[in-house]
Amino acid sequence: MRIDIISVLPELMESPFRTSILKRAMDKGLAEVHFHNLRDFGLGKHRQVDDEPYGGGAGMVMMIEPLDQCISELKAQRNYDEVIYLTPDGETLNQKIANSLSIKKNLIFLCGHYKGIDQRVRELHITKEISIGDYVLTGGELAACVLADSVIRLLPGVLNDEQSALTDSFQDNLLSPPIYTRPSEYKGLKVPEILMSGNSKKIEEWLHEEAVKITQEKRPDLLD
Amino acid sequence: MRIDIISVLPELMESPFRTSILKRAMDKGLAEVHFHNLRDFGLGKHRQVDDEPYGGGAGMVMMIEPLDQCISELKAQRNYDEVIYLTPDGETLNQKIANSLSIKKNLIFLCGHYKGIDQRVRELHITKEISIGDYVLTGGELAACVLADSVIRLLPGVLNDEQSALTDSFQDNLLSPPIYTRPSEYKGLKVPEILMSGNSKKIEEWLHEEAVKITQEKRPDLLD
Repeated sequence: MRIDIISVLPELMESPFRTSILKRAMDKGLAEVHFHNLRDFGLGKHRQVDDEPYGGGAGMVMMIEPLDQCISELKAQRNYDEVIYLTPDGETLNQKIANSLSIKKNLIFLCGHYKGIDQRVRELHITKEISIGDYVLTGGELAACVLADSVIRLLPGVLNDEQSALTDSFQDNLLSPPIYTRPSEYKGLKVPEILMSGNSKKIEEWLHEEAVKITQEKRPDLLD
Repeated sequence: MRIDIISVLPELMESPFRTSILKRAMDKGLAEVHFHNLRDFGLGKHRQVDDEPYGGGAGMVMMIEPLDQCISELKAQRNYDEVIYLTPDGETLNQKIANSLSIKKNLIFLCGHYKGIDQRVRELHITKEISIGDYVLTGGELAACVLADSVIRLLPGVLNDEQSALTDSFQDNLLSPPIYTRPSEYKGLKVPEILMSGNSKKIEEWLHEEAVKITQEKRPDLLD
């Protein structure tokens, strides 16, 4: 999988991609991530990428021309499955969307910044708009990291223990059951006895029951 | 505001906090963020912080003892308003939660990793569990960055143009209206004439109507 990330602040995304699972995925050649600094496509001597909104109001707007040039240059080099704009008014990311993106080959992520992008960029290039949740961030950069992480960790071979991804929260519409590790007692707090019984059938039943119970309590909407 | 972030991978969060708005907030002394490497509290020669789950199953569990020691040490130094565990089965982050956290003084963010933390840590220390969305990430580190960004940008004096935060998506339960900037025509795509009319009352009405229309189309649930 190849992901091209367009941003005015690519340096913000440096450490997440050189650490842990994302780094491993790239070292193994399972994912390629390329950053594109929008300012390289900025206009004039000052490499302008944003301007004031028509009609007034606070905040700056990312201009159409640098974005069009950057995206067009990428599209001329290969076919992209999706050109994704990270924006609070996009479709809310969930595990199903992450799963569906994990089987794509080439993706562009465009990080919004300031008040967002000129609406015409959406009409011209964007095929999918994704929000990582109902809250506002300084920019789309962290959202791009989150989306990349949620997708790349699903690529076959990225996680050491592939079963681990399958038993995560959301993959079966259930939250995870409680988990415990040694010691069996700490400051009077004990591990439930069933988990130390060695009876794997009973343990499995208990974990499933707990997962259902917790989901009913915390997130009944997931069971609909 | 002071945020203490506990993680097994603090280096993952380096670049987001030294860039842009988060850096500015810290340079201005409006927010302090301290990272704590859980491994400094690890057990034995190998600084162990995780172990296999009781009852079997894939993935490792973050042990209670290092976490208890780290959190207890912090709590001995100051009072914390909340000890927040970032976990997919927590309450889903939204702008209202971000707003409410932005008036707190001291917060601990605990980043889950591997399969999560020993359930007893939740009982012992955690006062609030937050999920940034219905998807699974490699760890809570990116979630902690997202939560910190959503909260810190709301602190008075962090954004240059305070009005800008108030007109963001979600602050009034409406998505943002479309925005445009120069040029007024690009590859045949034109800016709506009303925005160039100079009639600020009409423009404001139009922007509000568009915001309502877009919210009705994309996110009718926000209008309930």
